[in-house]
Amino acid sequence: MGSRELKLRDIFYPESIAIIGASSDDLKEKSGWTGTLLNFGYKGRLYPVNPKATTILGLKAYPSLKEIEGQVDYAILNLATTLVPKALEDCAAKDVKVVHIFTSGFAEVGNEGKRLQEEIRSIIERTGIRTIGPNCMGVHSPGGGVSFANLPREEGPAALISQTGAGAARTILYGNGRGIHFGKAISYGNAVDLDSPDFLEMLADDSKTRYIALYIEGVKDGRRLLSATQKCLKNGKMVVILKAGLTEAGREAATSHTGALAGSEQGWGAFFAQTGAIRVRTLEEIVDQLVALQCMSRPGGRRVGIIGRGGGPGVIATEICERLNLKVPPFSGTVRSQLEKITTASGGSMVRNPVEVGVGRIGAQQGYIEAFKILALSQEVDLILTHLNPEAFILYGGAPEWLNESIGVLCQVFKTLSIPVALVLPSGETPESREIVQQAWAQCSKTGLAVFRSYESAATAISNLVTCYEWRTEEDH
Amino acid sequence: MGSRELKLRDIFYPESIAIIGASSDDLKEKSGWTGTLLNFGYKGRLYPVNPKATTILGLKAYPSLKEIEGQVDYAILNLATTLVPKALEDCAAKDVKVVHIFTSGFAEVGNEGKRLQEEIRSIIERTGIRTIGPNCMGVHSPGGGVSFANLPREEGPAALISQTGAGAARTILYGNGRGIHFGKAISYGNAVDLDSPDFLEMLADDSKTRYIALYIEGVKDGRRLLSATQKCLKNGKMVVILKAGLTEAGREAATSHTGALAGSEQGWGAFFAQTGAIRVRTLEEIVDQLVALQCMSRPGGRRVGIIGRGGGPGVIATEICERLNLKVPPFSGTVRSQLEKITTASGGSMVRNPVEVGVGRIGAQQGYIEAFKILALSQEVDLILTHLNPEAFILYGGAPEWLNESIGVLCQVFKTLSIPVALVLPSGETPESREIVQQAWAQCSKTGLAVFRSYESAATAISNLVTCYEWRTEEDH
Repeated sequence: MGSRELKLRDIFYPESIAIIGASSDDLKEKSGWTGTLLNFGYKGRLYPVNPKATTILGLKAYPSLKEIEGQVDYAILNLATTLVPKALEDCAAKDVKVVHIFTSGFAEVGNEGKRLQEEIRSIIERTGIRTIGPNCMGVHSPGGGVSFANLPREEGPAALISQTGAGAARTILYGNGRGIHFGKAISYGNAVDLDSPDFLEMLADDSKTRYIALYIEGVKDGRRLLSATQKCLKNGKMVVILKAGLTEAGREAATSHTGALAGSEQGWGAFFAQTGAIRVRTLEEIVDQLVALQCMSRPGGRRVGIIGRGGGPGVIATEICERLNLKVPPFSGTVRSQLEKITTASGGSMVRNPVEVGVGRIGAQQGYIEAFKILALSQEVDLILTHLNPEAFILYGGAPEWLNESIGVLCQVFKTLSIPVALVLPSGETPESREIVQQAWAQCSKTGLAVFRSYESAATAISNLVTCYEWRTEEDH
Repeated sequence: MGSRELKLRDIFYPESIAIIGASSDDLKEKSGWTGTLLNFGYKGRLYPVNPKATTILGLKAYPSLKEIEGQVDYAILNLATTLVPKALEDCAAKDVKVVHIFTSGFAEVGNEGKRLQEEIRSIIERTGIRTIGPNCMGVHSPGGGVSFANLPREEGPAALISQTGAGAARTILYGNGRGIHFGKAISYGNAVDLDSPDFLEMLADDSKTRYIALYIEGVKDGRRLLSATQKCLKNGKMVVILKAGLTEAGREAATSHTGALAGSEQGWGAFFAQTGAIRVRTLEEIVDQLVALQCMSRPGGRRVGIIGRGGGPGVIATEICERLNLKVPPFSGTVRSQLEKITTASGGSMVRNPVEVGVGRIGAQQGYIEAFKILALSQEVDLILTHLNPEAFILYGGAPEWLNESIGVLCQVFKTLSIPVALVLPSGETPESREIVQQAWAQCSKTGLAVFRSYESAATAISNLVTCYEWRTEEDH
């Protein structure tokens, strides 16, 4: 029997969910799958299965899957490892569309686990049942009312396909604070059946998804991943991939985590070269990259104009940009003399690129904004990277509200400029600055201004962004 | 006339300070030098100089430097650029020990500024007067009651020698939140006279200083910097250097910032190879490195044991360690079976290295701590890197106090282990987790547990730490 073809809605919008192995103890199940789904606001039919209970958290409990009267779209297996094969057979008999095997202890733990995983694989092959996992958290889909934890409900254009569940939760939360909302996410663990190409193919045609991030330890069919990635990119979606397990120890760790065969650096290098997908190294870089993709328009090239407070920080920013394959060209005399009108070089400022603007008492914000306008009109840079030092606003006799004022005018003006803008705003280091930085970050995220915690994270994401657009242009020719 | 030899106390513990160019407007001077020093708690004699005032902020004002009756140890020049040469002559005549030229607009701004800086240099050469700057913030010395801003008062074993003032302030503040307290810091700008080797030589003999960080754009006498660095290291002090201005655009930016001649990558590469000083790339890395130096004992080698929550994060941590020249060796069967007793591999955990420990309701902290003891006694790793996912404690039905409990037991136990420990604890992403992470960081800093925001920052600092100790051992042979 062949594998049944799945649709996006079977996974992300199931109309009914059975929880096989729900606890008969309501207090325990409150933080179990039934409680988590109820708390997340699942609106479909929810069937907790436990032979020892008649109700669970106020819902009718079923002694077994087959006693459930209607269709079950999605089943979650929360059972001891050895009970999984039988339960999977039951799901096949009941014609469940997708089974999420939450249970761990398969290929990732060694020989006995491998044998059990093989048993599962043969059931899948024989029956055609489709499964997510084992050893994973499953689906997060605010639109479908489904999640594996008390995660944010915002439904945005980002999607996440991940072999780590803890990492997926963290990425969703971290993204949420940065204005990146994952409308669809999946933690798929050992991927005995459904694998990254399956999810990627579904998302390639999803009109709600614009950015797709993947955390991959291993993939069974590399060619299919390649063509699925190419399909996404062809459909105008941006793909960001963290490929883990390419150092020797990393490979062993990946095997120990999801039983994955991680592949080689050479093979994956070729994959990235052929697809134009963006390669990142950490979960935080995934979010940084999505911020750049979502908030910044397409830069015309690699030339960065740097505007900020602090001379040394400007020098450091310049070097980081250059090391990450961006350019910080010196301005022409024309631009310099325009800048000299709004900032005072003899007052410790710089006009050569980087530009250092003061934060004087009156008109500081005006001078700051004027610098943006001059650079945007200069045709000498392709984007502006600006940095603000939260403490400078407090330390040198300034008022804390200055930072929020600067952010306020920046948020008003950046969309009117002809080139993209990104802000570096490190977290505050005093109770006072922490508070205002928090507010400033929230304001930027709300307005859609790309904001980063460090020069490295900003320059890495921007450099990747330029490369990604360059690659697309070449492909078009 | 030769340059007068300066002592550490002339710069960091001046008994009298004249402020040449104090404002006659009390409201303005409150955030000027007089107000800043009064606010910081300077206990010596303070002489504001302004011909238009009789008192400034309650202090007697002097019409000129020469009217001051007693000795002036330290003078701050806060004047228009063109008035600086004459003021410097006055300081020489009054036999001021050190002059801090706060004023900007010299070599960093172009030809006219360069001419003025040359004029200053010739006054220095002729009179032997010693100067800090121009174009800089000067001294921060809590023990001497001196600072250039409302910075922390803690007097710790760290020192900072910096060509950026804004960067120095940020580093001092950032360090403060991480348990790194700068007992002495100096922002020295264009370095027309006193340069990094001068400050380094003074600090080499300072018993209160154990760690010295430098931000250098250029240095006039490279050989002297080399021997001063070697002297520090010989005296048991650790030296961390951020050398800025080594890319083409960075070099130009440095010239525009402090008029520095930045040197070549090759020359500086040789400098680091010869001295064994630790090289870092950003201000944040300076603080990370000082945290590793101050909090971690000497690791016996590069083998890292990783313990934490989350499988994917463990894989990512492994790869980052390996990329940064650390090793994450798989554990022997003996260690694995010891670990299996405290964690359940079939419950989604890993025991191979990285180790994934669960955060169950009861005894989670005990299992977590047991893993540390097993690894410390194993002789299979030289240090432990542990990571906690702040949201895991909240998301998966856990209580927020779990994180603080885990941190609490960790803070109790890490000092009793035979190998060093470092913790990666990213900032929280929900209002709830932000609060508890803030508390956890404070507790770690207070207890002296090395804590980092990311795997990269931890692994970079630890890898540098090992290299630095390896270098020392080689030198000893």
